[in-house]
Amino acid sequence: MRILVVGGSGTVGRAAIAELGRRHEIITAGRNSGDLRVEIADEASIRAMFDKAGKIDAVISTAGHVHFGPLTTMTGEQFKKGLLDKLLGQVNLALIGLHHVNDGGSITLTSGVVNRDPIRQGANSATVDGAIDAFVVAAAIEMPRGLRINAVSPGLIEESVKIFDGYFPGHEPVSSARVGLAFAKSVEGALTGKVFIIE
Amino acid sequence: MRILVVGGSGTVGRAAIAELGRRHEIITAGRNSGDLRVEIADEASIRAMFDKAGKIDAVISTAGHVHFGPLTTMTGEQFKKGLLDKLLGQVNLALIGLHHVNDGGSITLTSGVVNRDPIRQGANSATVDGAIDAFVVAAAIEMPRGLRINAVSPGLIEESVKIFDGYFPGHEPVSSARVGLAFAKSVEGALTGKVFIIE
Repeated sequence: MRILVVGGSGTVGRAAIAELGRRHEIITAGRNSGDLRVEIADEASIRAMFDKAGKIDAVISTAGHVHFGPLTTMTGEQFKKGLLDKLLGQVNLALIGLHHVNDGGSITLTSGVVNRDPIRQGANSATVDGAIDAFVVAAAIEMPRGLRINAVSPGLIEESVKIFDGYFPGHEPVSSARVGLAFAKSVEGALTGKVFIIE
Repeated sequence: MRILVVGGSGTVGRAAIAELGRRHEIITAGRNSGDLRVEIADEASIRAMFDKAGKIDAVISTAGHVHFGPLTTMTGEQFKKGLLDKLLGQVNLALIGLHHVNDGGSITLTSGVVNRDPIRQGANSATVDGAIDAFVVAAAIEMPRGLRINAVSPGLIEESVKIFDGYFPGHEPVSSARVGLAFAKSVEGALTGKVFIIE
């Protein structure tokens, strides 16, 4: 397969590529690195990326930022940024991408652990995660041409433990190898409308 | 209690008021009707509403619009409208409202059935519903002064069956009386971070 991985330079993207790159052709896209440049908050940028990528069998998105901060001082503008970046950005990758993926192909988005197992300062992150999980479940029933759509919801990845030191008390880190397997299940398997939880 | 019901003129708002109005003082707010006017997509309008409402013991939000339409022709702009109205609007009611609700009070948002039981043309609705459910679960752990926050997720309400004719095949309608009880559980009960599913 030809697989486009958006956000391929991040921890989750690298996990997906480490697993799927053994058997498939990988094209990476990112804000600042990768084979192609894309700004997922910009629909025109997403369209240009797909035009350059050509026909593909699968899209994996591991991209997007959310706002972390205390609930009591969180502003609507801060909250909106996470909605427009990680949430709407990934949704637009799916809405536009479904016209570029070959028949029977797949789209896999990335959510996260925070809606299942909330942490302080994580209200925006949890909201975005829950939204992505709900989107793939609903979108799956309307996908054309045998296309599938799923989400991978990884727990705190071992490589990220130091970066998020103190933010995830008691969370049991998951290996990037297990996260990579979830992407393989979504891309190479037959399921659709599923959230693959790695915890 | 003094309870502010935003969206009080809609089907869900009327269900909440029919139950809670028997025992409490109700102040209604809406886009085009009610004791106070509010545009929930506008933070300044939300702030003005809370200033006019004075001190309250509970906020109930049953407001917000989403986009219904086929996935394959849905645009990012259409999707964004639902995110900014029903989702960010209700989140902003909570983020601003938590500074106006008396100690030990509550905030209750409204999501819906579509993320649990998806329908065609419902991808935006499902996403917003899932996001609201996730938001209250995460926000609850950071609420100050003993404040609580929950969501009510009603199924298709009997009064709405004709309006949504054909959109919800096989959905078993729920009575507005049962939906009203869910709001009573949230406002008068002690639970927080919960999604009260009425189906």
